Amino acid sequence: MRITGLRATPIAIADPPLRSAFGLHAPFALRTIVEVDTDEGVTGLGETYGGEAPQRAFAAVRPLVIGRDPYDLTPLRLAIASRNGERPDGWAWEARTFGPPQLFSAIEVACLDAIGKATGRRVCDLLGGAVREKIDFAAYLFFKHAGDDAWGEVMSPDAMVGEARTMVSRYGYRSLKLKGGVLDPDREAEAILCLRDAFGSDVPLRLDPNAAWSHQTAERIARRLRGTLEYLEDPVPGIDGMSAVAAGTDLPLATNMCVTAFAHLPEAVAKRAVAVVLADHHMWGGMRATAELGRLCGTFGLGLSMHSNSHLGISLAAMVHVAAAVPELTYACDTHYPWQTEDVIVGGKLPIRDGSVAVPRGPGLGVELDRDALAALHERYARAGMTVRDDAAEMRKIDPAWRPHVGDW
Amino acid sequence: MRITGLRATPIAIADPPLRSAFGLHAPFALRTIVEVDTDEGVTGLGETYGGEAPQRAFAAVRPLVIGRDPYDLTPLRLAIASRNGERPDGWAWEARTFGPPQLFSAIEVACLDAIGKATGRRVCDLLGGAVREKIDFAAYLFFKHAGDDAWGEVMSPDAMVGEARTMVSRYGYRSLKLKGGVLDPDREAEAILCLRDAFGSDVPLRLDPNAAWSHQTAERIARRLRGTLEYLEDPVPGIDGMSAVAAGTDLPLATNMCVTAFAHLPEAVAKRAVAVVLADHHMWGGMRATAELGRLCGTFGLGLSMHSNSHLGISLAAMVHVAAAVPELTYACDTHYPWQTEDVIVGGKLPIRDGSVAVPRGPGLGVELDRDALAALHERYARAGMTVRDDAAEMRKIDPAWRPHVGDW
Repeated sequence: MRITGLRATPIAIADPPLRSAFGLHAPFALRTIVEVDTDEGVTGLGETYGGEAPQRAFAAVRPLVIGRDPYDLTPLRLAIASRNGERPDGWAWEARTFGPPQLFSAIEVACLDAIGKATGRRVCDLLGGAVREKIDFAAYLFFKHAGDDAWGEVMSPDAMVGEARTMVSRYGYRSLKLKGGVLDPDREAEAILCLRDAFGSDVPLRLDPNAAWSHQTAERIARRLRGTLEYLEDPVPGIDGMSAVAAGTDLPLATNMCVTAFAHLPEAVAKRAVAVVLADHHMWGGMRATAELGRLCGTFGLGLSMHSNSHLGISLAAMVHVAAAVPELTYACDTHYPWQTEDVIVGGKLPIRDGSVAVPRGPGLGVELDRDALAALHERYARAGMTVRDDAAEMRKIDPAWRPHVGDW
Repeated sequence: MRITGLRATPIAIADPPLRSAFGLHAPFALRTIVEVDTDEGVTGLGETYGGEAPQRAFAAVRPLVIGRDPYDLTPLRLAIASRNGERPDGWAWEARTFGPPQLFSAIEVACLDAIGKATGRRVCDLLGGAVREKIDFAAYLFFKHAGDDAWGEVMSPDAMVGEARTMVSRYGYRSLKLKGGVLDPDREAEAILCLRDAFGSDVPLRLDPNAAWSHQTAERIARRLRGTLEYLEDPVPGIDGMSAVAAGTDLPLATNMCVTAFAHLPEAVAKRAVAVVLADHHMWGGMRATAELGRLCGTFGLGLSMHSNSHLGISLAAMVHVAAAVPELTYACDTHYPWQTEDVIVGGKLPIRDGSVAVPRGPGLGVELDRDALAALHERYARAGMTVRDDAAEMRKIDPAWRPHVGDW
């Protein structure tokens, strides 16, 4: 089996005006749809970060991919790493830092999809088999501006409870994650307490201010929300910062910011900086890498949850297959998926029911590419003129003086 | 694809009178040959520890295996673990402690062989692809008694140099590992220095007294052999003991005794007990587990080498496929293989040339079962009446007062 073609199609997808500590989501989020053609007539699919940096990376890696056996993945990983130089410090959830692990991951997913389609097996089976057939997700609650959507403005605890009710009634979520770092920290704690009142004590709650807070604020809010939160995600920046907060609370701290690569784990473990690592196969170097991360977290007593960026159905399918195959992944996963109204997969968006997504039954990832939808979203990418995500710039269009909080709120 | 049959055939293979800190190898070593039949007409092969304990374990696990999809491996691992209870402290290289990781591993290998044979792919490809096509092995040098073999008695440094010369001329080894814990520690250090003189400085040397030594002896020998040994393996027992020795030397310490399961790693890392972990897919819970161990060791700055027990060609093939697929495995692997004159694979023993074994080209493990050979070795098992390996009892047949050294030599 040989790879005969590699396409990485940049697309722009509609995105509502969601807020975070980084600023404001632009009207479009950028993604890349990856296709790997093979001489056996099957094409494997992948999806990753968007914009210009991935385009350059895929173009550069073409000679390493074309002609390769799609099973020949670890050698490809090493070839990409040695070509580009590993970037253990690459916090790569933005396309700005689309490095070797992120590039390899996108190709790995497409190759595993191709292998699955060629052999009639699901990707989760290629990773060792499904330990679960339904993957639980948490509602991903955002403060947001009013926009071209039905959600309206959500900039208060009360409005947030309304958003959560709609999410829960529509998708059946049984866990709630609030993206914080937007309102005053005590207002966000208040929002959590309102969610607790509204949904009762059986619904796990998480809060993620994306490292906007100071140590003092994190300590105060951790005291206030201890016993209320399932975990507090990235209250402050850095392993040392997280470690200092962790030392003063028994509220579990989670991260997708200070531990985003294997190289960060030894220090994080030694300093007891976090209790939960948020996996993300797009960021951590692929699906097998995520299984390896799972074993590592299980070994060192760390919990494993899953991070999300704005994404479409190919990424969701991949996330679901990984979550099915990695036993250590025991928290409900994050997903932005309901915030996206479009998709590139045949049959429209994958359903979220009772807060979970069923592992697709078909071979490979179990999703097929809608080429018309892809063409339309690619055309929009070309028209939109965005080459990189910049939530801060988007925010400053509204408030020119706006500056992100980084460990100082 | 469904598993329709599971056979675990106990065999006894001829073994020369090799010495170690545990005593003397009996005339027969015990192994188990595993076969997994499938409804697609292929049968997958595995090989593991021998004797009665594995027989009981395979019989007990039958209901979990028959009818299962051979891709459905991680769920099988969890089912076996929850059925038997995990034994994180199980130092399981003896059949005495044939626990869930060892049982799962044997079945995993056979299932991966079946998948490979069914899909026409090599097992190393199913694990992510081969990063190397030749696997380097170290000559495994043993002090030994005279026996029913051509090697004669080897109980002195001079005789050991002779054994090593024969090994190197026959198999082309470019690394030498001396099994110690047999002669006085300083005599064994002398043997290493004689090997250094005989083979020059380009041939890495290792010494493994299997935790027979005291701290004082380990310190003294480490000083003496610093700069001469590639690594010193298990000079003393236990993570604390190894940690204390490691603190006083820059000679890398390796282990297959104090770190033999994932659960041992956090303490070993925190106490800087070892620089090199010896993987063994038979012991660590399988081939994917070994890949996960590789990532973990790479992440925490630990080297990865490979441990061996007396084994035949199915195990060697599996070791070679794992070593091909795990990039972190950068040391020459251990193997007892040349000490065994028999085999159960078609075509006789796999060749070791230039100190390395080529990854077999055929599908699955790339080896086929010689059923006549299997029947003969199984008959010998029945006749031999051995149910467990007991090197100390074998030694006491010669010297009734013999007691193993454990951290006191």
